[in-house]
Amino acid sequence: MQTNFKKPLSGIIPPLVTPLKDNETLDVESLERLIEHLIAGGVHGLFVLGTTGEEQSLSYKVREQMIRESCRINRGRLPLLACITDTSIVESIRLARLAAEAGADGVVSAPPYYFATGQPELAQFYEELVPQLPLPVFLYNMPSHVKVSFAPDTVRRIAEIEQVVGFKDSSANAVYFQSVMYKMKHRPDFAMLVGPEEITGECVLLGANGGINGGANMFPELYVAMYNAALKHDIARVVELQKHIMQISLSIYTVGKHGSSYLKGLKCALSLLGIINDDFVASPFYKFDAPERERIHQALSQLNIQNGKLIF
Amino acid sequence: MQTNFKKPLSGIIPPLVTPLKDNETLDVESLERLIEHLIAGGVHGLFVLGTTGEEQSLSYKVREQMIRESCRINRGRLPLLACITDTSIVESIRLARLAAEAGADGVVSAPPYYFATGQPELAQFYEELVPQLPLPVFLYNMPSHVKVSFAPDTVRRIAEIEQVVGFKDSSANAVYFQSVMYKMKHRPDFAMLVGPEEITGECVLLGANGGINGGANMFPELYVAMYNAALKHDIARVVELQKHIMQISLSIYTVGKHGSSYLKGLKCALSLLGIINDDFVASPFYKFDAPERERIHQALSQLNIQNGKLIF
Amino acid sequence: MQTNFKKPLSGIIPPLVTPLKDNETLDVESLERLIEHLIAGGVHGLFVLGTTGEEQSLSYKVREQMIRESCRINRGRLPLLACITDTSIVESIRLARLAAEAGADGVVSAPPYYFATGQPELAQFYEELVPQLPLPVFLYNMPSHVKVSFAPDTVRRIAEIEQVVGFKDSSANAVYFQSVMYKMKHRPDFAMLVGPEEITGECVLLGANGGINGGANMFPELYVAMYNAALKHDIARVVELQKHIMQISLSIYTVGKHGSSYLKGLKCALSLLGIINDDFVASPFYKFDAPERERIHQALSQLNIQNGKLIF
Amino acid sequence: MQTNFKKPLSGIIPPLVTPLKDNETLDVESLERLIEHLIAGGVHGLFVLGTTGEEQSLSYKVREQMIRESCRINRGRLPLLACITDTSIVESIRLARLAAEAGADGVVSAPPYYFATGQPELAQFYEELVPQLPLPVFLYNMPSHVKVSFAPDTVRRIAEIEQVVGFKDSSANAVYFQSVMYKMKHRPDFAMLVGPEEITGECVLLGANGGINGGANMFPELYVAMYNAALKHDIARVVELQKHIMQISLSIYTVGKHGSSYLKGLKCALSLLGIINDDFVASPFYKFDAPERERIHQALSQLNIQNGKLIF
Repeated sequence: MQTNFKKPLSGIIPPLVTPLKDNETLDVESLERLIEHLIAGGVHGLFVLGTTGEEQSLSYKVREQMIRESCRINRGRLPLLACITDTSIVESIRLARLAAEAGADGVVSAPPYYFATGQPELAQFYEELVPQLPLPVFLYNMPSHVKVSFAPDTVRRIAEIEQVVGFKDSSANAVYFQSVMYKMKHRPDFAMLVGPEEITGECVLLGANGGINGGANMFPELYVAMYNAALKHDIARVVELQKHIMQISLSIYTVGKHGSSYLKGLKCALSLLGIINDDFVASPFYKFDAPERERIHQALSQLNIQNGKLIF
Repeated sequence: MQTNFKKPLSGIIPPLVTPLKDNETLDVESLERLIEHLIAGGVHGLFVLGTTGEEQSLSYKVREQMIRESCRINRGRLPLLACITDTSIVESIRLARLAAEAGADGVVSAPPYYFATGQPELAQFYEELVPQLPLPVFLYNMPSHVKVSFAPDTVRRIAEIEQVVGFKDSSANAVYFQSVMYKMKHRPDFAMLVGPEEITGECVLLGANGGINGGANMFPELYVAMYNAALKHDIARVVELQKHIMQISLSIYTVGKHGSSYLKGLKCALSLLGIINDDFVASPFYKFDAPERERIHQALSQLNIQNGKLIF
Repeated sequence: MQTNFKKPLSGIIPPLVTPLKDNETLDVESLERLIEHLIAGGVHGLFVLGTTGEEQSLSYKVREQMIRESCRINRGRLPLLACITDTSIVESIRLARLAAEAGADGVVSAPPYYFATGQPELAQFYEELVPQLPLPVFLYNMPSHVKVSFAPDTVRRIAEIEQVVGFKDSSANAVYFQSVMYKMKHRPDFAMLVGPEEITGECVLLGANGGINGGANMFPELYVAMYNAALKHDIARVVELQKHIMQISLSIYTVGKHGSSYLKGLKCALSLLGIINDDFVASPFYKFDAPERERIHQALSQLNIQNGKLIF
Repeated sequence: MQTNFKKPLSGIIPPLVTPLKDNETLDVESLERLIEHLIAGGVHGLFVLGTTGEEQSLSYKVREQMIRESCRINRGRLPLLACITDTSIVESIRLARLAAEAGADGVVSAPPYYFATGQPELAQFYEELVPQLPLPVFLYNMPSHVKVSFAPDTVRRIAEIEQVVGFKDSSANAVYFQSVMYKMKHRPDFAMLVGPEEITGECVLLGANGGINGGANMFPELYVAMYNAALKHDIARVVELQKHIMQISLSIYTVGKHGSSYLKGLKCALSLLGIINDDFVASPFYKFDAPERERIHQALSQLNIQNGKLIF
């Protein structure tokens, strides 16, 4: 299998929210607006059906539609990754094949999340799964949701399969991220990507390849600027941009109940910014009521936004 | 909607293992043998696609087939419950409708297990889900796998919907179980069922309605005898049977890695007993190798088994 | 060393609250009233400085005073156990020697609770500690507070030291409790005691020796009655008493913040019942304010209490 | 009270191991050698009785001696901080007073670690504790050991007390660290210090004041060099030094059982390097046996050490 990732995938690859009308209906119009907004904002790739994309809450019909429509709208302009995380290996493979047919460039996989595996089982699982996938594979570490963390040595073992071309870490544990970086230093083609936007700057400074940052759905230019500043080792700029990033994180993602506040806040802000029509969140989460929506409105009003763009 | 559970569902309702040939192929012949073995063993109901049934590891095709074939083989002889736990509400509803058409008597639902909900969201989720289901509903508490526990008051709130007719607790936390029992004492038609076979005796003594005991796949008579002894308040017999139950639990479910040892040990023992053909375990777990299989063989040889039946 | 526990310690052994005037001052008068109340209520032993006794929050001066005064007041009427759980082995040994000199009959030890040990280290720790203790030893399982649980095989290994004469489990995990019971069935002199009062009935029915029940500080007769009913296999009575026990548990221990609600509720109720003068709780917890105190008052008023005694 | 921290405490402040002969005997000779080694290595402060210093495992006699001897040996050459973390507020205050008398410059406090407090209780606890302490106070976040994390808003609330002059975070959660940094940006005199040496570089780049790095016990120059490179924004140097730091971390702290491997490996290496006489670890941990010691020896031999100094 030919991979398109001879060089590691780099830059800001936003995990797209999935615009919805209800639990069964993708809002294609909003998706078009979102993707054009991201491409215009200078991002380096697109990642659909991640945790921010609510993959697990969606029906398979909507998951498939989301992949197909995103590939159609993207028209190959940016590398597009599709998440295939599932508890069933059969469904993971099926979704990966559909993604390949639709034109995706890679797939992303977090461990099965009902049964918790030990490390040897986890490695064995990927050794079974990966060869059945038609696209390059990025491993996705998300212990808060899947209960299992890839041990650094497990990443290294799985990554002996050449088709495995990158790693996304959403643990927020920076010691862990450094450990995986060190274990993978023999593979310069291997992309080390970090989930939380709050630490993308420091991770890129230390050698990571980029960030899969949810906030880029709203303000792609900000996160791209952070990536570029870090790449250029412009620390003064990194520190300045970091303040904007933290302000967003601590005002937009912290309304309401912990756990769902990030997703609800992000979708709410996107609808207030006019990027998506409705902030419908799939069950078992529910979009904000008026008081929480007002708090997001106020958080946005604290930012310097002109013509829909954040000035920083 | 008419429910068939005017009286609470009671007795031993084994969570059937799902006999497999590989990740995509149900072993129907073994399933027939298993169901006849259980019915001959005197159990009071059948529960398919639970955690023991590896629902989450199976493709949807196999999940559907498992429900259909089980209903066909059962021919209405026993109440049959199908698990519809899913991260997607749409897929949960779809599976429940299929179960109703196939002839199942009720559905069982644990909370969505990717995103962890707070208690109000959890209640709201079931208030959305239950009215869309065509069958009576049993809530399923399984915090080790789904990360969320139903608070006792949440059970009570959800159970204000008459269609919710029972509760299965697999937490092993007996204080918690007593708390839910107390909160639900106003509904004598509400079935309080306990997962772990190691505590079914004591729970039934205190008023629970029965057990969803995995070991009953192997030795249904033992767990039925425990249920009957507890129902008759025959403590001497309960204590005696408890020793057999603990011997099985501590020898057959404790080989190899924690977490998967229960499932692998149970399927391995069932294949050694000739009840299922193969002990194939769906990915991301893998059946025992020869040394572990030998340990299960030895554990079985410590039991007094004659003509495939445990003597106790 | 001669132990006084040729037969296993049995019955209701309340974990005494520590009556305080402030963080540094034991309220000896209240302690006298509490101990007389307990002895009059028919309990079978006294346990001081447990989790309910706030050992870890107290200065060593108060810990020592609590042991000495309790032994003095008890005058050998009941077996008296002192908790010596500490993160420092040296301080544990020192407190145990003081307890022996003061006249205690045994000591209770949970694992060190700052560093979390693995099972081999845990066994090694007790093999080092126990021979340096001048009294019979009860192991104390309290994973929610000490982060480590004794594996059943670790209990068995440590209990090869004859001086280890019992086990108290506060995990609330009834499967775990049954597993330890089974592993220890070769030692009929070994006391199996359960912490949570909500499950003492069912545990004693299955063969446990008794309960270390916090509610017995308030209403010793109720828990003694439960113990006796279970011992006599009077299931109807057990089920009836269980309702009273659950009512207390779900009304008095559930006010305010989770975690500290049990301790604050218990001390508040004891002060309202006139058993202790003040419900001062040692830092880092703080006694209830007026609104929470009123809720405890109302919870008590729902019980049938006449002349300070619960009628059941 | 006058504090000595008008400017935030900055640089590398090693958490000293506590050299021991046995559970009750401080090895003063080794302590002298260690402190001279650290001062010669250019560190910016000394921190005694932290997690690396095994405070909780030591008797109070040894804790007090460790503070007194360290202050005596230090002779005021470097700012010296003493950890006073305790489950008893009375003992915390007592130790802090002793530290002040001995000449320490500040105290460090992690939350009480037996009972887990909620955030309001945690704030209330520090509002009670801090005014009774005679020295400037650094808060210490250590959720893996104390079960509770300071919420960023709780840090901010407690830090309204001027005497609270800094924060040490050992959570390894870099998103969390950034959040506290942002919440505390109004206090430029407030020291933001990070525990794990694996992320000190990136944290200092983003504005943190320094690191409390255990590895500095062995190779103080390396961590001081990292601090200086980060301070000068010399990213190429940071990345180069990071490789050495990760090599040490992944070879010396990963032998044997997880949890205790860091402490055992560090003390073992220090004894092999001749900095301390014996690698005795206080109960409930135990020093490495010969095979593990050999693995540490090999890990050290992979480093370029000349005349006891790491060449990098």
